[in-house]
Amino acid sequence: MSSSYSAPLTDIRFVLYDVLGADAVFEKLGLTEASRDMLDAVLDEAARFSETMLAPLNGPADEEGCSYDKTTGAVTTPAGFKQAYQHYVEGGWTGLSAPVEYGGQGLPYTVGTLLNELLTASNLSWSNYPLLTHGVVEALTQHGEDWQKEVFLKPLIAGRWGGTMCLTEPHCGTDLGLLKTRAKPNADGSYSVTGTKIFITGGEHDLTENIVHLVLAKLPDAPAGAKGISLFVVPKFKVSRDGVMGERNAVHCGALEHKMGIKASATCVMNFDDAQGYLVGQANKGLYAMFTMMNTARLGVGVQGIGLSERAYQNAVSYARERLQSRSPGGAKYPDKPADPIIVQPDVRRMLLNIKSLLEGSRVLALFAALMVDVSQHSKDPEERQRADTLVAFLTPISKACQTEWSVANTYDAQQCYGGHGYIRENGMEQLVRDARITTLYEGTTGIQALDLIGRKTAQSQGAGIKLFLGMIEAFCEQNADNAALAEFIDPLRQKAEEWSELTLKIMQRVPQNPDELGAASYDYLFYSGYIVLAYWWARSVAAADASSHSDAFKRTKRDTARYYYARILTRTLTHKAILDSGAELLMAMDEERFDAR
Amino acid sequence: MSSSYSAPLTDIRFVLYDVLGADAVFEKLGLTEASRDMLDAVLDEAARFSETMLAPLNGPADEEGCSYDKTTGAVTTPAGFKQAYQHYVEGGWTGLSAPVEYGGQGLPYTVGTLLNELLTASNLSWSNYPLLTHGVVEALTQHGEDWQKEVFLKPLIAGRWGGTMCLTEPHCGTDLGLLKTRAKPNADGSYSVTGTKIFITGGEHDLTENIVHLVLAKLPDAPAGAKGISLFVVPKFKVSRDGVMGERNAVHCGALEHKMGIKASATCVMNFDDAQGYLVGQANKGLYAMFTMMNTARLGVGVQGIGLSERAYQNAVSYARERLQSRSPGGAKYPDKPADPIIVQPDVRRMLLNIKSLLEGSRVLALFAALMVDVSQHSKDPEERQRADTLVAFLTPISKACQTEWSVANTYDAQQCYGGHGYIRENGMEQLVRDARITTLYEGTTGIQALDLIGRKTAQSQGAGIKLFLGMIEAFCEQNADNAALAEFIDPLRQKAEEWSELTLKIMQRVPQNPDELGAASYDYLFYSGYIVLAYWWARSVAAADASSHSDAFKRTKRDTARYYYARILTRTLTHKAILDSGAELLMAMDEERFDAR
Repeated sequence: MSSSYSAPLTDIRFVLYDVLGADAVFEKLGLTEASRDMLDAVLDEAARFSETMLAPLNGPADEEGCSYDKTTGAVTTPAGFKQAYQHYVEGGWTGLSAPVEYGGQGLPYTVGTLLNELLTASNLSWSNYPLLTHGVVEALTQHGEDWQKEVFLKPLIAGRWGGTMCLTEPHCGTDLGLLKTRAKPNADGSYSVTGTKIFITGGEHDLTENIVHLVLAKLPDAPAGAKGISLFVVPKFKVSRDGVMGERNAVHCGALEHKMGIKASATCVMNFDDAQGYLVGQANKGLYAMFTMMNTARLGVGVQGIGLSERAYQNAVSYARERLQSRSPGGAKYPDKPADPIIVQPDVRRMLLNIKSLLEGSRVLALFAALMVDVSQHSKDPEERQRADTLVAFLTPISKACQTEWSVANTYDAQQCYGGHGYIRENGMEQLVRDARITTLYEGTTGIQALDLIGRKTAQSQGAGIKLFLGMIEAFCEQNADNAALAEFIDPLRQKAEEWSELTLKIMQRVPQNPDELGAASYDYLFYSGYIVLAYWWARSVAAADASSHSDAFKRTKRDTARYYYARILTRTLTHKAILDSGAELLMAMDEERFDAR
Repeated sequence: MSSSYSAPLTDIRFVLYDVLGADAVFEKLGLTEASRDMLDAVLDEAARFSETMLAPLNGPADEEGCSYDKTTGAVTTPAGFKQAYQHYVEGGWTGLSAPVEYGGQGLPYTVGTLLNELLTASNLSWSNYPLLTHGVVEALTQHGEDWQKEVFLKPLIAGRWGGTMCLTEPHCGTDLGLLKTRAKPNADGSYSVTGTKIFITGGEHDLTENIVHLVLAKLPDAPAGAKGISLFVVPKFKVSRDGVMGERNAVHCGALEHKMGIKASATCVMNFDDAQGYLVGQANKGLYAMFTMMNTARLGVGVQGIGLSERAYQNAVSYARERLQSRSPGGAKYPDKPADPIIVQPDVRRMLLNIKSLLEGSRVLALFAALMVDVSQHSKDPEERQRADTLVAFLTPISKACQTEWSVANTYDAQQCYGGHGYIRENGMEQLVRDARITTLYEGTTGIQALDLIGRKTAQSQGAGIKLFLGMIEAFCEQNADNAALAEFIDPLRQKAEEWSELTLKIMQRVPQNPDELGAASYDYLFYSGYIVLAYWWARSVAAADASSHSDAFKRTKRDTARYYYARILTRTLTHKAILDSGAELLMAMDEERFDAR
């Protein structure tokens, strides 16, 4: 009923220790509890939990889905979810990277990212419940008043309560300035929140005693648009300022959405009818508070892409090695068998290597971005914090959009390796494709990430992010200028970096003449950049493998995969560049009516 | 519960009459019944039937699916399917392009292709039932004995009986040489067929009185492998040589597959237990007979890609024009509305124009291939027949693989235009994505089409097909050498054609040194070729529009779409060429074990 999964600990440790030297970074940051022994132990335990508790539930839970009781508004998660959640809570996972003062373990954000990959790969639907709670913890930690932290953070971090982010409304998603949910102040300092929110992940479920909603709404006197949005905390069961859980609040799940995938993740319509809530942070600054949280949520969704790709890859390789069909083009490789396994076919290898090279490169990118989050939060050097912060801001849209779009492509390729059997539900591959599909839509579509990269993160910041990243590439190329073993990667990488720099300038110069140029370039600029970013990480991966104590086979495999990446993936930049050179006019020429004359 | 659909008759007629001059071709072939009046009437009626009877069933039937009765082995199609099928039969559609002598209307194959696009767009699941029957009619017409034609063709063409193709077995799909189903001769000249077939579309259902299975099986003395396969006709209810339907035959549906999509299309496991059948064509030549049928089935699946893309496009355009969110980058275009429709966004237009340019180009390619089928069957000139046959053989893998892969991309882009709402079942877009996914798998995966193109249709035929197509491009470029209005397309088209020719030779020269080179190049060679083929049809479309009596807006739209195609789609050949230049070694370097060290 499902695909199998085994946590890729060898590759994860290689990225963590050999490529990124994360253990040394943590030590330098004073995060001494995150020692290599501790990290290894966390990884082993997380692997055991994910593989044994979550992965087997993935297929059955997709078949069963969540159920909704119209009379009570209650949502029941699929069989096994609650039990797995109890184990998760008992294992202390809910507070892994949460603040120690509220009961968390205070481990680095990067460790949470490692956990996220394993949970996602095992069971994306299930993993969304703790992921959203984690987002709420982060927002309240940064923006909550002291009493709010005291009252809400402890049960959230302990896993007794869950959390949600309530942004979207039926008529607005990207453009939150249009939202209609209202909050009016009460005499006791609380607010009455009224409105309808949709697409609320974990809006209602049976995993926790209480659910804490973070809700965007407008105050009576709020300015129009995005500058008039405030953030409120609205619990399912009312909570007094001294932390006592009281009566049911006027927030209810009105319906569950029927979706293409992540069917075991409750996606709720939430109705607020004068529900009691409290303002979080400053009035009318809610969007700002929400965005600080959304940035790491976006990195989290990017990691979901890696988890899904890994699971798809593992199953595709197994199938390709077992399925006997036809002979190798050069003649039988297994003459004693009725046919050769399809992995001897070049085109099957093409699909596997597409996945492998995108997936392993993405893992480095994602863990580097996570590490920069830790540096930006824990470094004692303000300049280093600033630099890390700029890199996180720059890499977030690339990581989110590329890793999720690649996960769509990767699960597609993996399914294709199965031929017709990939279309059959029992084999589990089609679920991965359906589940992956949400990742390019939620937490900002790919188009929104693309605009974020080229607009806010490049044009509006005078290229601060790309300059830093180009500096990293240049430094690496300098360091390895005489490294003959790396020359095959260094030369094309240096050329691509120069091209990237020039192309970025060229696009920016076109913008003043035509404001559509940014949007017209956005998608291709995002992927063009993403492929170059990954080329850097692949070159670094080969260098790190060579310098490591890994086996020769491991080193050769990294090199072979990097070669594949440079020849058959990085070359996608040729097309993106040609498109970027073609400008906006081609997109804007047609009147709106002309699109639908059929 | 579903997406909407309106048959794109304006564009279909433009392709049929203005680009391809199909009416004149039919007249020259002596297919005088296929006059323009007749074609127009068929299109109008087919549109009415598809839009009103089939399209509204598409969503509900996906929700309901087919059901299977374990006790009786009976399969029930979703509500409305049987009624729609009765209307289809009564309308005479089942025999549209079938031979007149067996009750068909004898209209050209091209007309069947037009119908297929409309049926598919309306309801892919439903359309598979008549599509498979059509394949059986074709195979029996070409390979059946006279009594078999007499007995089987009439009820099949009249729509009273349905048909299936039984090829795949659990352990073999692509490599049919491995099949295990056996047929032993009986004293009365019939055969007893025993074995299990899987993935049998329409293997059991409630639409027709009888179902005629064409089954690949091995005779007792058959040579090993693909040269020992014979074709048998095995009806669900036994049929005597004088056409009397008798008792139930020993062929039963053992299960329905649970699939990602096309849930209303019954995909059956079929068990044959000494089922009575008759040999079709020569013993041990069954694969040959099956392949003649499969070629047009592949063109048919290619057309499915167009139908799905069209429906996805129409809905995405409607949504993009209605959904109000944010403002145009250059400032509000609809200041009286709370926000602008998202179609003002360049990146939304990118997605719509991707679909539009691939879809409309594909329609020309598919209808040209269909027209060549008619020429190959009806021309009095043997040289012209041969030429048409070569073009059909060459274009079949391109048409099948590109149009289906593009339909996956197109439905994806259309869904993406909806943002999160695209993931919700009620909006119907996710069904199109799930349904489209089967088209790149059945009737030979994309990888199989790619091998067919570069192997059988190019290397093994000394490039007969590409030479003819290059000749068409050259002739068109010559004719328009002085046409200034077309120069923007003619120049790059000529360059790409030269490059295609040279690149093909280069690849062929590498093959003798390494037999893996064909497989390593196959996928990228297929798409590289497909994009150039479409560039030719786009240039022809602009020329045809300019010369037509269509409105200026129509002409400008064709030109704008062609410009988009040349700048933003044809440029994908840059990447494919770079990959084709990189050779097979990159794919073959890794040992099989090294793929799964994680």
